[in-house]
Amino acid sequence: MATQQQEAGLKEQLAQSIEAQGLKVRQLKSAKADKAEIDQEVQNLLALKKELALLEGADPAKKASKPAKSNFTLKTAKGTKDYNDKDMAIREKVFNTITKVFKKHGAVTIDTPVFELKEILAGKYGEDSKLIYDLADQGGEECSLRYDLTVPFARFLAMNGKEYQNIKRYQIAKVYRRDQPAMTKGRMREFYQCDFDIAGSYDSMIPDSEILRILVEALTNLDVGKFTVKLNHRKILDGIFEVCGVPEDNIRPISSAVDKLDKLPWADVKKEMVEEKGLAVEAADKIGEYVKHKGGRDLLDLLKKDEVLMANASAAAGIKDMETLFDYLEVFEVMDKMSFDLSLARGLDYYTGIIYEAVTEKSAPPKLAEGVLPKKKENGELDESTVGVGSIAAGGRYDNLVGMFSGKNKKGQPNLQIPCVGVSIGVERVFSILMAKQKAEEIKSTETEVLVIAVGDGLLKERMAIAKTLWDADIKASYMFKNKPRLDKQFDVCEKEMIPLAIIIGKDELEKGEVRIKDMRSKNEAQGGGVTIQQADMVKEIKARLEQL
Amino acid sequence: MATQQQEAGLKEQLAQSIEAQGLKVRQLKSAKADKAEIDQEVQNLLALKKELALLEGADPAKKASKPAKSNFTLKTAKGTKDYNDKDMAIREKVFNTITKVFKKHGAVTIDTPVFELKEILAGKYGEDSKLIYDLADQGGEECSLRYDLTVPFARFLAMNGKEYQNIKRYQIAKVYRRDQPAMTKGRMREFYQCDFDIAGSYDSMIPDSEILRILVEALTNLDVGKFTVKLNHRKILDGIFEVCGVPEDNIRPISSAVDKLDKLPWADVKKEMVEEKGLAVEAADKIGEYVKHKGGRDLLDLLKKDEVLMANASAAAGIKDMETLFDYLEVFEVMDKMSFDLSLARGLDYYTGIIYEAVTEKSAPPKLAEGVLPKKKENGELDESTVGVGSIAAGGRYDNLVGMFSGKNKKGQPNLQIPCVGVSIGVERVFSILMAKQKAEEIKSTETEVLVIAVGDGLLKERMAIAKTLWDADIKASYMFKNKPRLDKQFDVCEKEMIPLAIIIGKDELEKGEVRIKDMRSKNEAQGGGVTIQQADMVKEIKARLEQL
Repeated sequence: MATQQQEAGLKEQLAQSIEAQGLKVRQLKSAKADKAEIDQEVQNLLALKKELALLEGADPAKKASKPAKSNFTLKTAKGTKDYNDKDMAIREKVFNTITKVFKKHGAVTIDTPVFELKEILAGKYGEDSKLIYDLADQGGEECSLRYDLTVPFARFLAMNGKEYQNIKRYQIAKVYRRDQPAMTKGRMREFYQCDFDIAGSYDSMIPDSEILRILVEALTNLDVGKFTVKLNHRKILDGIFEVCGVPEDNIRPISSAVDKLDKLPWADVKKEMVEEKGLAVEAADKIGEYVKHKGGRDLLDLLKKDEVLMANASAAAGIKDMETLFDYLEVFEVMDKMSFDLSLARGLDYYTGIIYEAVTEKSAPPKLAEGVLPKKKENGELDESTVGVGSIAAGGRYDNLVGMFSGKNKKGQPNLQIPCVGVSIGVERVFSILMAKQKAEEIKSTETEVLVIAVGDGLLKERMAIAKTLWDADIKASYMFKNKPRLDKQFDVCEKEMIPLAIIIGKDELEKGEVRIKDMRSKNEAQGGGVTIQQADMVKEIKARLEQL
Repeated sequence: MATQQQEAGLKEQLAQSIEAQGLKVRQLKSAKADKAEIDQEVQNLLALKKELALLEGADPAKKASKPAKSNFTLKTAKGTKDYNDKDMAIREKVFNTITKVFKKHGAVTIDTPVFELKEILAGKYGEDSKLIYDLADQGGEECSLRYDLTVPFARFLAMNGKEYQNIKRYQIAKVYRRDQPAMTKGRMREFYQCDFDIAGSYDSMIPDSEILRILVEALTNLDVGKFTVKLNHRKILDGIFEVCGVPEDNIRPISSAVDKLDKLPWADVKKEMVEEKGLAVEAADKIGEYVKHKGGRDLLDLLKKDEVLMANASAAAGIKDMETLFDYLEVFEVMDKMSFDLSLARGLDYYTGIIYEAVTEKSAPPKLAEGVLPKKKENGELDESTVGVGSIAAGGRYDNLVGMFSGKNKKGQPNLQIPCVGVSIGVERVFSILMAKQKAEEIKSTETEVLVIAVGDGLLKERMAIAKTLWDADIKASYMFKNKPRLDKQFDVCEKEMIPLAIIIGKDELEKGEVRIKDMRSKNEAQGGGVTIQQADMVKEIKARLEQL
């Protein structure tokens, strides 16, 4: 315990820190710094203030006598939420649909820890590294919550590369980002990712085409409405940048600018290239000519006639890949879903081959299709309420990521290099689309098939015995947890939980060894008394009725 | 981007903050403050220093040219591990088996975040609170990783109590404990819990008996071998302590000592009670007489004849509960699995009614059954290698936990009180038992049913087309990702992945519109050429064969 004198010193220091931090926030605000950065510093300021408040109210005697704090906020942490039974019923349907497609294509699943050593994640996410959640230093290793499932998968391959030179794996799990949450757009700090990747050295474009076929199957089965898969190739894009005169060290920044074309008009992107990133106006204009193209085979033919572009080794290689890919996609009958789109760039640095992004009508910007552009806020930032939720799936080829983990040999080459191609389905967006389609009260969250109901004197043990017989026969059965439940309350349970069948027992029936079965969804039986049968035939009769549901 | 002038101002402020923070740390250290507190402030100091370093080294060109650190340890964080495809195949089977039982009993599932506000977890785990993982303070709320699924469930009920007065819910998810890992015993820092709870005000012992029935069904279906459910009641135990003369404020400590009886001989437990916890020798001896009893209805009858005990209100209430419970368990035909065991105490403070623990022959201490006691290490701690993995499931009734979150009304009563009873299945131990039973090479981790094989010239697009036809018919099919794979390599894939059927195509077959089907597990067909059929009949034939598998 600190002495009074020490505590006074601490308070003074804290007060100074608060003043300094306040100044910092004001400076950032007047400099119109990034909103997330300001928010972060404001949070730090509030934390300091809270600490001081605690110290000022810190009476040790009081502290000791108080067990757990009685005044606390009853909520989930910022950017996280609970999923209730109805949400989960939809979620399970989505996961099952997707998993079924993945397994049909020979996938296995693996599971990696929620946190990784901090250094594993370091240097993988560029600017977005600031969004990584760290664990507190409680002694021992420095760890961070995973940011995606791709880096842990690459780490797994680097560790187990001898056994797993070839693997088709899927993983459905939560990832963590300290981003500004936007609940209405489904942007959370904790959210599910659903990844399928094919790792291994194979002949060109074969796994790539299967990934795209899988994506089309999954989105079709998920019933998310009409969708398009935008498709491009990093080598073509890099070739275009080269022939347009972008200096090598400016290629990734210019690529990031192009990536914004789905949210911003060309004029704004050009401005970013020229004014912020120092690109020559003519170079930007040349790029503008290329990236406006989209199509299918026709676009490929157009590019092949472009002699300047075909003379560029990178572009030529990319175009050859695309030609092979299109051949395979035709065999798989999914070319009608593809849009070869030269404006697609994808933010992540680690892609090395084809890249893609699926958009649905519902995930596209609400009015962009009609030519209405998103609005900006006063501070110049994009007003997110005027932008769509973005892509519902995305991915690409990344041949060098595993090598980043494998260490280097004497020649400076990675010890192990496993090429990969993968896709991540944005399941949270899929949920939003599907939840919007359904009324909560229409979602059945239990699977209960039969409610065992008593007329008259409760008959608890008798209801239990019948439920037991049904459970033994693998029938999903419940009964009310009351000694003497009212009849109308029991019928209410059937209705509320959407239980299709009821078994009704009374003293008379039991004495005769009978039960009544009532179909709760059929007007005739539900209003009438149901059908009376021998108790010995009960399981058979129920099973027959369930098969007809 | 901040201007240079603003940046200079920021740097100065940061330098000041660092100085202040450094002073604070030195003061805390000299005041010998709490280690966790010092650690926290040191972290804050390091964060500030890092921020300054970043600002000072902020040359965008330099940053871009430096890739990631090349020297790091390639491993998962301490106490965590990856689960590979074989592990996951077993794990999925376990989860599916358990989930099926839960759903049969009308359960829904919910999902809560991996981290909670720190104050939600505070004061719930007694001494074990030191094992809670905290997130780093990166500004904003203080959060911790969940320690179990029970406290988040109680928090969920307190938040959503109006809608969820009654709920049967299960949750299968990872929890986190900074414990000393013991991989061989399956004790990890990240591990799955698998919880089923029934919340709501019901008539006595009805949900309790269903939970025990569910536990028996789940363990039976999991095929973990012979098991016993040890059963006791907190009110009986507290009554025993009272009549034996344990002072009220010593009841929980003495209860903890009794809890060790499955690992330690009575003499050691008695020593702890008398020497460490200051209990009178006679009181300890009386307890010793009680806790050696185990049985069924016979033990209940014995206790009912104990006039001293029956005069104790708590014990009498507990005994009445047990009598009702046994009636219901008999209806459910699970009494043969129960052992009413007065030595069962359970560590957690929040239990208020029945408590239970399932042990299998394989989870019991290796030699304890034969009278050989576990050994102690030189430092007096238990040598864990001589102890069994402990219980494989445990739980009890906890009627007051939700009230801890609901706030209090003017009379000091909780605003909302939802009684609960639940069970947690130790799935990691179940995995260990099941993995030990099976050889890794016998576990099929893909579900692939058919491999499409080419004889001769590769026939890539033709293999793709056949795979596509199979996928369209919901058949799980693969082919090798090579332009011209060797025939023996293709057969190797069948064997390695345990794929039961092969479709073989060659130029001749294709010209005649035929394919060959080969059952790879049948000696006759696998060694011979298989059966040749028309391509049009392929799907029908494959489906017929799969149904027979």
